[in-house]
Amino acid sequence: MARLENIRIDEGCTSCTIVDQTRLPRELVHRTLSTPEEFYEAIATLAVRGAPCIGKTAAFAMACFAQQAALEGCSFEDARERLYAQADYLQASRPTAVNLAYELDRAREICGKTAQDAWQLAQRLRDHACDLEKNEKRIYESIARFGLDLLEPGATILTHCNAGPLGCGWPGTALGPAILGAAEGKHIKVYADETRPLLQGARLTTFELSQAGVDVTLICDNMAATVMAQGKIDAVMVGADRIAANGDTANKIGTYGVAVLANHFGIPFYVLAPKSTIDIACTTGADIPIEERSGDEIKTMWYEQPMAPEEVQCYNPAFDVTDAKIISAIITEDGVAYPPFEESLREVMSS
Amino acid sequence: MARLENIRIDEGCTSCTIVDQTRLPRELVHRTLSTPEEFYEAIATLAVRGAPCIGKTAAFAMACFAQQAALEGCSFEDARERLYAQADYLQASRPTAVNLAYELDRAREICGKTAQDAWQLAQRLRDHACDLEKNEKRIYESIARFGLDLLEPGATILTHCNAGPLGCGWPGTALGPAILGAAEGKHIKVYADETRPLLQGARLTTFELSQAGVDVTLICDNMAATVMAQGKIDAVMVGADRIAANGDTANKIGTYGVAVLANHFGIPFYVLAPKSTIDIACTTGADIPIEERSGDEIKTMWYEQPMAPEEVQCYNPAFDVTDAKIISAIITEDGVAYPPFEESLREVMSS
Repeated sequence: MARLENIRIDEGCTSCTIVDQTRLPRELVHRTLSTPEEFYEAIATLAVRGAPCIGKTAAFAMACFAQQAALEGCSFEDARERLYAQADYLQASRPTAVNLAYELDRAREICGKTAQDAWQLAQRLRDHACDLEKNEKRIYESIARFGLDLLEPGATILTHCNAGPLGCGWPGTALGPAILGAAEGKHIKVYADETRPLLQGARLTTFELSQAGVDVTLICDNMAATVMAQGKIDAVMVGADRIAANGDTANKIGTYGVAVLANHFGIPFYVLAPKSTIDIACTTGADIPIEERSGDEIKTMWYEQPMAPEEVQCYNPAFDVTDAKIISAIITEDGVAYPPFEESLREVMSS
Repeated sequence: MARLENIRIDEGCTSCTIVDQTRLPRELVHRTLSTPEEFYEAIATLAVRGAPCIGKTAAFAMACFAQQAALEGCSFEDARERLYAQADYLQASRPTAVNLAYELDRAREICGKTAQDAWQLAQRLRDHACDLEKNEKRIYESIARFGLDLLEPGATILTHCNAGPLGCGWPGTALGPAILGAAEGKHIKVYADETRPLLQGARLTTFELSQAGVDVTLICDNMAATVMAQGKIDAVMVGADRIAANGDTANKIGTYGVAVLANHFGIPFYVLAPKSTIDIACTTGADIPIEERSGDEIKTMWYEQPMAPEEVQCYNPAFDVTDAKIISAIITEDGVAYPPFEESLREVMSS
């Protein structure tokens, strides 16, 4: 089964090919991005989405722009000026995306060092993007391996939202063990919460798992208790947006509820995320601000007609913070951290 | 504020006016039903829905048909034959609706007794329907009163699905305390789960509560844990489809999950339902069969475009069974039953 690559740099190094995530799950459309305007549009419209994927896209975009400048015969200085302007332009495509800003800063740093010519600058930016990709691949494969080792062959997991190859990189974080398991004949089955209101579980998780040959069943978020009560679920695996020093974990809205259910039914609840997600400066989950989004996502988005009276107020937090007390373990590329997380996460971060 | 009446018999007693529930929440449309075909269509298309409402519609329909026969000068015998045929016809409009079958049987029984003429038969059927309505009103008002007494003025409840005036009768079961509270200035606030996949909470509960002047906030099902963790919820109030002798309660899918969350966060979880919902012959929830519905309700219904790959399998149970161990109390028209429910429910049923 062909691997779903969220982005790859094309031969010639002047363009990238992406999977247009806005077209999923209806069709698998690849698009070629070459100009700053094309990259901008792809990020702004969520054709590329998922924090790691956005960062990688920015790194590859800068490498392409530098290669284009070299091919056009720009001097190092001219290329550098152009790249600075292009980085500023790209940053506005999604102002709140931390990984985007971070990778554009890295590119600016690379531009800041003297180079022989534009070719050398292009080479350095390309090397950086490729290193980033290689490093991510190593991280995700390692997380998937540690996660898979926690499961018996034939086990069934439940996941919430989407932490798979498209948003992260192959084979994803929370979806990594199931995808690796499929490749190794261990047949991990998955129940995927649809994950209202943005439906990442329905749209992306089921698509990615099917593509990877994993047996996946879609349920509504409110059916998780029933499948757990029926004994169908051996473990819950979710990703994370931010993990506090005490293990409190911010992730897509609904994660906390799934954790409470897992705790009630005696099912292990695992968080899978790269070490970079752990924020030791953040003591507990109370320090994590929660984004509140428009009620239109609940009342009108995706629908043929509004599904609630226009005047009804909504509360639409985008994330929640799962209490570390009901998290069984946190899996990073370095291994499995168990409670008490104050100690085990500090150990992970110092390793 | 005008009361939302799901159905009422018109002057002249040959037709009924209903609220077309399929047009909600976009518009409040009243429709007049007079012929068997019109009643059939209204039940089949869910323009009238909710078990008690369907039963009441059947009773009023039979009263209207009898009045029409009398006006046309039918003899008692001719009217009776016509009514038998009309009852058979109406029964096919929703073959699985227990309340529909029950009320049509009651109408057949009334037809089975000798009457002076078609006028007397019409009078008897009309009296039966009006008694049914009066009795329901008494039951729902009593449930609302007992439920409201469990809440402090200004309290906030969370509810799941729809157990309000339209499906039941004024002021509904789970929504009764909030609606009665609004009328009495006690300002009960409500968080309403949208209740996937059929969205009864978004479409109907928010509409009914707004109409009754209740402060209601719509959330996705997966946000219940967050509002509970934030201390926003003082109690959960839900309806019931069937209550076993030990208190295990079948209700709309997602109810069980809400109960587990309430238990985790130390929030009382109340079931509000008429005594007729208690099935003493059913020992525990394990005896309650759960209807499984089409995955299209999850993947395509309501949407402009399918939201999951066509080939992805779904699991779509329509109900779940909440473990009696995490139910704080069951409120019927006779009062509040507390655990152990084996005893308290038996007492309720023998009173």
